[in-house]
Amino acid sequence: MSKLLIVGTVAFDAIETPFGKTDKILGGAGTYIGLAAEKFGVDSAIVSVVGGDFPQEYLDLFQQKNINTEGLEIVKEGKTFFWSGKYHNDMNTRDTLDTQLNVLADFNPVVPKNYKDAEVVMLGNLHPLVQLSVIEQVENPKLIILDTMNFWMDNTLEDLHKVIAKVDVITINDEEARQLSGEYSLVKAARKISTMGPKYVVIKKGEHGALLFFENEMFFAPALPLEEVFDPTGAGDTFAGGFAGYLTQTNDTSFHNMKNAIIYGSNLASFCVEKFGTERMIDLKSDEIDKRLKVFKSLTQFKIDLN
Amino acid sequence: MSKLLIVGTVAFDAIETPFGKTDKILGGAGTYIGLAAEKFGVDSAIVSVVGGDFPQEYLDLFQQKNINTEGLEIVKEGKTFFWSGKYHNDMNTRDTLDTQLNVLADFNPVVPKNYKDAEVVMLGNLHPLVQLSVIEQVENPKLIILDTMNFWMDNTLEDLHKVIAKVDVITINDEEARQLSGEYSLVKAARKISTMGPKYVVIKKGEHGALLFFENEMFFAPALPLEEVFDPTGAGDTFAGGFAGYLTQTNDTSFHNMKNAIIYGSNLASFCVEKFGTERMIDLKSDEIDKRLKVFKSLTQFKIDLN
Repeated sequence: MSKLLIVGTVAFDAIETPFGKTDKILGGAGTYIGLAAEKFGVDSAIVSVVGGDFPQEYLDLFQQKNINTEGLEIVKEGKTFFWSGKYHNDMNTRDTLDTQLNVLADFNPVVPKNYKDAEVVMLGNLHPLVQLSVIEQVENPKLIILDTMNFWMDNTLEDLHKVIAKVDVITINDEEARQLSGEYSLVKAARKISTMGPKYVVIKKGEHGALLFFENEMFFAPALPLEEVFDPTGAGDTFAGGFAGYLTQTNDTSFHNMKNAIIYGSNLASFCVEKFGTERMIDLKSDEIDKRLKVFKSLTQFKIDLN
Repeated sequence: MSKLLIVGTVAFDAIETPFGKTDKILGGAGTYIGLAAEKFGVDSAIVSVVGGDFPQEYLDLFQQKNINTEGLEIVKEGKTFFWSGKYHNDMNTRDTLDTQLNVLADFNPVVPKNYKDAEVVMLGNLHPLVQLSVIEQVENPKLIILDTMNFWMDNTLEDLHKVIAKVDVITINDEEARQLSGEYSLVKAARKISTMGPKYVVIKKGEHGALLFFENEMFFAPALPLEEVFDPTGAGDTFAGGFAGYLTQTNDTSFHNMKNAIIYGSNLASFCVEKFGTERMIDLKSDEIDKRLKVFKSLTQFKIDLN
C-alpha cells in the first residue's frame, strides 16, 4: 500500500456563518487533508503540533480514521493553534477575527521514520520553512504537492520560492495565482508559476471549480452547484486531501490520472461545505461519495463526435 | 432545413477596453446571435429595426452570411440604436457610458411570412412586449428561447413575466437569476425560475461558464480559459446564438442534445472575445471551431468507471 505523508495545521476553529456559529471545534489544514485522504484507504501520517489543551477525543478520531499520529507533536504546556473567522452573506469572502499561533510559532516538524519513504507528500498550508524541512526529511518521494496562501507571499516570499522550486504540484486559489505570477489571465499565471518549479499547477476557484495545468494541456472540474453552502471552511484543504489521497491510492501520477484526482477532490469538497467544520467529512460514507461522482459525471460529460 | 427566427437589437456600439477603443461599430444582440447561428448553416432570419444611418455594408454582411433581413425594418428618417460602454481592468464589469434607443423606441416587430413556421425562435434581449409580439406572430414553434437582462426586471417586470411564461428556455446571467428568483443559490434560483414557465434554465456565469438546469438534472460547461480577453461585448449573445443555431441544425430539443448546444455556444463565445466587436465572428472558419471543440473536450472529459 502506498503511503501519504501530510504536513499541515491541526487547530481549533471558531466559525460564524449566516447559518450560525460554533465554539472551538476541530479544524486545521492537516486535519481536513487527513480526513479527505482517508476515504481512499491509504496509509497516511500527519506531521503537526498541538497543545496540551487538544482533546483526547480528537486524537482518538485520527486513530479511528487510520491517520498515523507519531508525527503529531503534543506540547503539554502549550496551546493549540486557534483561528476564528466570519463569513459574509455570499459565503465567498470572510473576515479573520482572531489568529493565535500558539505552539505553531516554534514548530519543528519531525517526519516519522516509517513515513520517510512515503510515495506522496502533501504539504498543507503552513510556514514555508516548515514545509521545506519536511521535504528535506523525506527520501525520494514520487510526488510532492504544495498548498500555500497569500499570507506567505506577503511575508516570506523568498522562503516560499525555495519550496515552490522543489515541488511537483502547487495548488493555490485564483487570486493567489495572480499575486504570485503578476498575471491576471489564469492561463498566463499558470505558465509563469510552472517556470518556478511545479510541473503541475492547480488553480482553485472556490464555487467556480478548479483548473489543472500541465505543459500545454488544461483540465477543468466544476464545483458541484449546491442548494446550500453551510460552511466553506476546509473546502480547499479537503480538495487537496482528496486529490493527494486518490493519487496515493492509485500510485499513478500521469496527467490522465491527475484529471481524475481533481474530480475526486472536487467531489469531496462538495460534501465538506454541507455542515460546520469537519462534521460532514467524519460521517461521510463511501456509497455517498460514489453516488455523487455519478452526479459529477452527468454534470460534465457530453457526447460530441469529432474527427 | 430547419428555420431559426431571431429577434434582437441591431446596433452601433462604441467600446472601450484596457486594450483600446472603437468608433461606432456593428453591434447588437440580434447581430451577434445571427453571426453565431450562421456557423450551423441554418436558414435564419432576423427581426429588428435600424435607422437610415445604417450602412449598406452591414446589410450586405447579413446577406453574405445568409441571414434573411426581410424582417429588418429600416426607418429612413431615424437613427440606429446606439450603445457605448467601458470595461474595467478585470473585464468582468463595465460602465454604460451612453444608450440612445432611437428607432428602437417605437419598434413594432413584423415576422416575415416565410419564417412564421420557424422551428426555433430566439428572443434576444429587447423590450418584453416586443418579444411577446414575436411569440404571438409565430405558428407552433418547437422551441422558444428567451434572453433578457436586469434592465427589464427593474422596469417592466410584469411584461417580462408574461414572456417568461411562454418560453421553453431562458438564458440569463447569475446575478439576473438571483434577482428574478430572490434566491442566492443558483440551484434554488433555477428551480424557482422553472416554475415561472421555462422547462430549461440556462445560467450564464461569464468567464466561469454556464449551467443548464432541466427537471432534476444539471449540466455545466466551462468558459475556455484564455490568455487574453480582448473585448467581452457580445459573448453572451454569441453563446445564445450558438446554442440556438446548433439546436436548429440538429432539430433535436432533448436534454441530451441541449448539453451539446451549451458546449457549442461556449465554444463560439470563446472566439467572440478575442477581438473587438463582431470582428472575430465574421472571419471565423469552421475548421477553427472544430479544432477548439477538441480543446473543450479535453478540458472537461475524464474517465472514471463507476458501477
